[in-house]
Parts: sequence; structure tokens; C-alpha cells
Amino acid sequence: MVTKKQIMEGLEMVLVPGVMRSIVKMNLVRNINITNGKVDITLAAAALAPGTQEWLKDKINDAASGLTGVSKVNIDVEDIKPKDLNQIGQVVAIMSGKGGVGKSLIASLAAVALTRSGYDVGILDADITGPSIPKMFGIGERPSGSESGLLPVTSKSGIEIISINLLLPSEDDAVIWRGPLIGRAITQFWEEVLWGQLDYLIVDLPPGTADAPLTVMQQLPVSGVIIVFTPQDLTAMVVRKAVKMAQQMGKPILGVIENMSYLDVPEINKKIELFGKSRGKEMAQATGAPLLGQLPIDPELAKVCDEGNIERYNSDIYNAFARNLTEAFRNGKKQVGK
Amino acid sequence: MVTKKQIMEGLEMVLVPGVMRSIVKMNLVRNINITNGKVDITLAAAALAPGTQEWLKDKINDAASGLTGVSKVNIDVEDIKPKDLNQIGQVVAIMSGKGGVGKSLIASLAAVALTRSGYDVGILDADITGPSIPKMFGIGERPSGSESGLLPVTSKSGIEIISINLLLPSEDDAVIWRGPLIGRAITQFWEEVLWGQLDYLIVDLPPGTADAPLTVMQQLPVSGVIIVFTPQDLTAMVVRKAVKMAQQMGKPILGVIENMSYLDVPEINKKIELFGKSRGKEMAQATGAPLLGQLPIDPELAKVCDEGNIERYNSDIYNAFARNLTEAFRNGKKQVGK
Repeated sequence: MVTKKQIMEGLEMVLVPGVMRSIVKMNLVRNINITNGKVDITLAAAALAPGTQEWLKDKINDAASGLTGVSKVNIDVEDIKPKDLNQIGQVVAIMSGKGGVGKSLIASLAAVALTRSGYDVGILDADITGPSIPKMFGIGERPSGSESGLLPVTSKSGIEIISINLLLPSEDDAVIWRGPLIGRAITQFWEEVLWGQLDYLIVDLPPGTADAPLTVMQQLPVSGVIIVFTPQDLTAMVVRKAVKMAQQMGKPILGVIENMSYLDVPEINKKIELFGKSRGKEMAQATGAPLLGQLPIDPELAKVCDEGNIERYNSDIYNAFARNLTEAFRNGKKQVGK
Repeated sequence: MVTKKQIMEGLEMVLVPGVMRSIVKMNLVRNINITNGKVDITLAAAALAPGTQEWLKDKINDAASGLTGVSKVNIDVEDIKPKDLNQIGQVVAIMSGKGGVGKSLIASLAAVALTRSGYDVGILDADITGPSIPKMFGIGERPSGSESGLLPVTSKSGIEIISINLLLPSEDDAVIWRGPLIGRAITQFWEEVLWGQLDYLIVDLPPGTADAPLTVMQQLPVSGVIIVFTPQDLTAMVVRKAVKMAQQMGKPILGVIENMSYLDVPEINKKIELFGKSRGKEMAQATGAPLLGQLPIDPELAKVCDEGNIERYNSDIYNAFARNLTEAFRNGKKQVGK
């Protein structure tokens, strides 16, 4: 006799168009009932356009009917909201206080590192007025969706991404919004996007300590924060503001990362500290969090980001950094579990 | 017989404490009446604490009494708001869309350049959540003031500065405010700060196109915008958003500046384009505005900024840039005059 487990395995092959993850991973399979070879499957309709629903029903029917012991397949569609379907292990915010320190870069590198380690990862680009995530991953498709919600767009290596830039008529368009609207956009990205099952959702915050970070910290179940900074004294001061904000909101700091730490000029066998002396240890002490890495300025990295190929990036320094980063995310999960 | 002009010249010596600019430059002398050697002077009380008012009255009395032909000096104090006293030639906003491109640095370098050319200059730091202007100028004094307003703090070379960081109990404190409060802080910096007579007020905007830039463009008489960017493709995209915003608000773009264009490594006689190929010409064409400069990454500049000594900075590249910048500000003034 056919089992629920076998049916589930069969449905793992049914991919949601656009997202290219299975209906199981997207948590769309709500119920399976088997009575004498007759299989009843309930499919959640969240964020699926009517055409997509029909298409999926056909695919589900094909997949289930093909299994030994299945005589009949019936598929019901249930109206349910994305937020009631999402199962997200841990939400981690990447924060900096000051702009241009490479926060989006770190968010993207973290997603790549976790994906390479086998985790299911999403990125919520909360930088509504200066979104840069889609560009680094080279994605530009409009997310599909229905009245009940949106589907994220998936990167080449399977990272789910949502960003305001994917929803604008042109990527150059300015979002000239006041705070409350920005907060609402972020809340929608959380509640009305079908993320499905994810181990980690990385939130790329905009600089500052105003509406967007506030909304994220107050309305999303952020379990930890990673702080990015550059060696400048100036930056350190502004970053301390971000640290204070995270502490005031009761969010543990999982790690700190110094970006643009130095430039390696192999021709003269010299590391030039372009933006001043490193402050990595100092920041780690100040926050009581581990220093996850001190990344150099790497023209090669700037290049792959501009080309939308961040997922192809590789370097010894990055690999060591990726290990620390993955560890910090795992530790965050343990803290949540306590 | 003593003339009004002579009295005014005498009063040029009376400096407002803290600001260290004369009561004439601060526009506090409202009226001078001379009748048979008896001089009546009306002093505006805006932003002056009662003690400061008394102190200034003494100094005014001393200065005027000392002039030949003056037999008696009478000083009246008039209640008047800072915004009714301020006389500002031109308000120019420094904008970028993306953070960390060196917007505050350019705002500060522009103020230094204009001051060296003999203009009276102020900086309104509109980056409420990530203010970095005071640090670069090495100032940390709290602005003094009264119920009617605030006095700016003056830098070593006489630039008037107001920033939220001068008003916080500790510079590390985070301003965790939502948009409307941020907008109100900026409006107050404009209406309730006694700027006095200035040729140029430079507004350092935060990154993005949300509340702060919106408030500045809507509520301040901004006559032109200067756009700062770095060579990254990513940055260019976000900067185009800022350009669109300025255009939608009807603000002329006075010039564009490429920062962190390259690093000069004299040891190998090489200019390294750390963040990708220059986009200066492209951005100038896209905006129809002159390219005012392509600034290299200069560790020396980072150092003087961290030490609070930006006013001491000098380099050949900077001097050429300062000339272009001053010219752009002058052109802006002409456009306003039209």
C-alpha cells in the first residue's frame, strides 16, 4: 500500500514555477489522506496565480498517479496566507548604522556560504530606497504572485530573494516614500511573501537606525544581528549606534565583521590599510561578539558583484570567513533553541 | 557726527560666544538710530540665553560708547525667531542615494573649499541616524541656545555646523526615530537655528530617497543638488534613483563627483581601480551636469578625517577639485538669480 511518505517524496519533484523549489519545500502541501488507494491532497493556494494552481494540480496528479498502489487522486485547494505557511528557522539581520560598509555584500556572501553548506536560505532586502541585492545575484525577473501574496525570485544556486527593485517598473526608479510606507513594504515582504521552509532568512537592513531597522526589529522575529563596519573611526562611532540599537531592542549580536580592512598589493608585498588601522578586536570587545572576519578590498569581488555573479566568488580568505559565518549562524540557532 | 556705518563697524568686533562670529554676521543687529549723539540699538534675542543677552549688551555698550561722537547708548532687545533673521544665499544638498560613497566627506570638503575662497558657509547635517560631520571637524561642544532657538557650533576655520550628534548625551547614542520625527528634527535645524548671514548652507543628506531627503527638498529652499557616487555598477544604479528624485522634485543638479575612483600606488607607478572602471563621464552625461572631480582613495584624507582635522587637508588633486566645486556653487547662485 502506498504511504504518505512515498507521496511526499513523489511531490518533491513538483517544482513551483519561478521559485524552482518543490511544493513540499514551499510548504504548499497541507494534507494527504489515503483511503484504499484513493489519495486526497490539499494544496495551499498562497501566492499562486490561478493558472499556476491549475498547472500544479496537473503535475501533482501526474506525480501521485504514477505511484504503485494509487488508484485515484483528488486535489483540493485551500486558501491560506503565506505567513501561515512560512516555516523559518532563524531570522538574522545584517546591520551597520553607516552606509557603504558592504552590508549588502556581507548579507549576500552569508547567503552563499550557508547555501554551500546545504542550508535553505532566503534574503529579504529591507533596503527599500537603496536595494542592491538583486544586482549582485544578477536577477531581474518580476516575482510572480496572486492576490494572496508574492513568490520570491530564486538565484542560480537556489537562494530565495525578495527586493523592492524586483517590483519597480525600472531598476533606476526612486522609491520616494516616507517611513510608514517603507515599514509597510517590509512587513509585506515578511507576511505576504511565500518563503516556505527556510533554515535562515537573512534581512539586509538599510543604514541608520530609523524606520526600516525599527520595523524589522519590532515586527520580525529577529533572533540575532550581525554587525558590519569598516576601519574608519567615523564608521566605528556610527556603528556603535547600531550596536546600541540592537541591544536596546534585546537582539543578541552573533558576530562582527570588518570589511575593507586593507588592500593587498602583492607587487610590493604590502597590505595597505586604506581606511585606517584595523578596529576588529576593539569592536569585538565592545560588542562581546566574535570577530568573524577582516575582509580586504578585493577588486575581483567588486567585479563579480557588478556582473551579478557573486555566487561564483571564491578565495582563501572568503572560505575561512564563510566557515566562521556559518558557525555564527548555527550558534544563533542554538541560542534561539534555549 | 557718528554714522550708522561707523556703529556697524564697531559692532563687527562683538562676537557671539560659542559661534565666534560677530553679532552683525549673525544678523542680530536689527536697528540703529542716532539722535544728537544718542545711539539706540535694537538687538535680536533669537537663540540667545538671558545671560548671553546681558553679556552682549555690555559688549555692545562698550563698543559703541568708545566711538567719537557717541554720548549715550541705549540697547533694546527684540524677540524674533531665528528663521526671520537668517539670510542664506544658497542652499545646496549633497546627495547620493547609496551610503558610504563619501557624501559627508564631500559636504565637508566643499565647505572647506568655499571657506578658503572667502565665503561664509554652514553645514546642516541632515543625517540624523548616522551623523558624521562633527567628527571630521573635531568638534564636540554642545550648541548653546535659548527657548527661541539654537546657535550652531563653529569649526576652527569658521564653518557653522549643526548636527544631531552635538545634541546627544553621548556621540554613540542611537537615534531610534521613525520618519516623521526625523523630518521634524531637520525642519528645526532649518527654522530654529540662528545661521545668520551665510553665502552657502550645505545640507548633508542621509543615503536613500526616504524621509530626510524628502523633507529637505520639500521644506528647505534647496537651489541645487550635488550628486556623489563611486565607480561600482551597483552604486551607479542606486545613484540614478537619487538623480530621478532630484529631477522629480525640480532641483537642478549642479555637478557630479566620483569618489574612491582609484588608488595611487606610487611604488609600482600604478593606479588601481579598486571598485571597477570609472563611470564619471557616463554619470555626467546621464545627469547633464559637469563632472567636478574624480577623487582617489587617499589614506591621508581618511587619517585627517578621523583626527577631526579635515580643515588642514591639502593635495594637488583636492585643490583642482576645490576650484571646480567653488565654480559649481557660484553657477548655482547664478541660476537662482535668474
